[in-house]
Amino acid sequence: MTPEERLKEMGIELQEATSFHPAMAVGVITGNLLYLSGTTPPDRPDKQWRGRVGETYTVEEGYQAARECAIQQLAMAKTVLGDLSRIRRVVKALGMVNSPPGFSDHPRVMHGYSELMHEVLGERGVHARSAVGMQGLPSNAPIEVETIFEID
Amino acid sequence: MTPEERLKEMGIELQEATSFHPAMAVGVITGNLLYLSGTTPPDRPDKQWRGRVGETYTVEEGYQAARECAIQQLAMAKTVLGDLSRIRRVVKALGMVNSPPGFSDHPRVMHGYSELMHEVLGERGVHARSAVGMQGLPSNAPIEVETIFEID
Amino acid sequence: MTPEERLKEMGIELQEATSFHPAMAVGVITGNLLYLSGTTPPDRPDKQWRGRVGETYTVEEGYQAARECAIQQLAMAKTVLGDLSRIRRVVKALGMVNSPPGFSDHPRVMHGYSELMHEVLGERGVHARSAVGMQGLPSNAPIEVETIFEID
Repeated sequence: MTPEERLKEMGIELQEATSFHPAMAVGVITGNLLYLSGTTPPDRPDKQWRGRVGETYTVEEGYQAARECAIQQLAMAKTVLGDLSRIRRVVKALGMVNSPPGFSDHPRVMHGYSELMHEVLGERGVHARSAVGMQGLPSNAPIEVETIFEID
Repeated sequence: MTPEERLKEMGIELQEATSFHPAMAVGVITGNLLYLSGTTPPDRPDKQWRGRVGETYTVEEGYQAARECAIQQLAMAKTVLGDLSRIRRVVKALGMVNSPPGFSDHPRVMHGYSELMHEVLGERGVHARSAVGMQGLPSNAPIEVETIFEID
Repeated sequence: MTPEERLKEMGIELQEATSFHPAMAVGVITGNLLYLSGTTPPDRPDKQWRGRVGETYTVEEGYQAARECAIQQLAMAKTVLGDLSRIRRVVKALGMVNSPPGFSDHPRVMHGYSELMHEVLGERGVHARSAVGMQGLPSNAPIEVETIFEID
């Protein structure tokens, strides 16, 4: 099953990703690596993510936001690569959680990203990662994630 | 036109960069990648950058600080490479903005870095990036940026 | 002298490292690069690291915590590689220091990591790095570090 078929089975549709500045790329390929720009969970008509995990959002809601970041990173990879089957491996992710002083559950939040990658890509989705706490993020989003993929 | 000629045309002079600790390098080359150490905007006789964007500094001043980080990263690349024409591509930048709770304009600050790279290197300067908010930075600098280049 | 012999001489013993989630790896190899997951200083029976540098911990204690992160990153590298002699170079480290507003001594804290790598690996331990201040970290640890190695 291709990653695209698996996503369809899961009821997930990827949107075309675009850069919001001419000096920035959705992602850059160098050798067998694809470096993606960081992403926050995209706004939807019925849901805008604005606030900190551990304050505005629970850990469970943060998990969902992290999952949306993973979906958006796959949408960005598809925009750059054309075909998600070109992904050999998720190499590394940096999960940056917008959270108040004293919050320390960043890993449980970031599991939303990691489990989505694992569900869609199987063993190729298992990655190295860090999950840490930020003072703030663009648009006051609860989480931002950036990914390095190994590709064909 | 070489990057060095372009910089001269823009009235920008690069200073030799040095490591401040024997266990640290200005940058490390591995294969076709150059990983640079992070840099804050260098102190000048008439200007020392100390403070947070959104508190001590406006977004416009933060933009200028980010631009100075880009110039310093190019100075570091030149120190390692000898010649900026060896740069094939700016692959990835991480822009870390020292900012107070509630600040969310990190991307507009980091545009100062991205636009300088674009102005000097043209299409080769277009990169993947993240721009996020930090609790604090060395010397209480308003921004720190680290870059990965693809090189010849 | 191998890195393992050098560690023994320094009285340091590496523990086997394990991933705490099936979607996460201790480290991922891609080409000649090994990307490790970030690590906080491991808990020991007589010492649990919980708190911020510049508040709970002094800079000197933070330095020791950073040193423990370096040892743990070497333990993780050994788990993945089998043999630390496969390390050609420490390429890049990101040192994330859990610290209160106004703290700006992140580099002196991170020197604990850098000097350990230099002591164990010699010139191969000299690396590019950033050292920055975080709002929070998993388990309220004082520091988290992630490393990229070049390997054989």
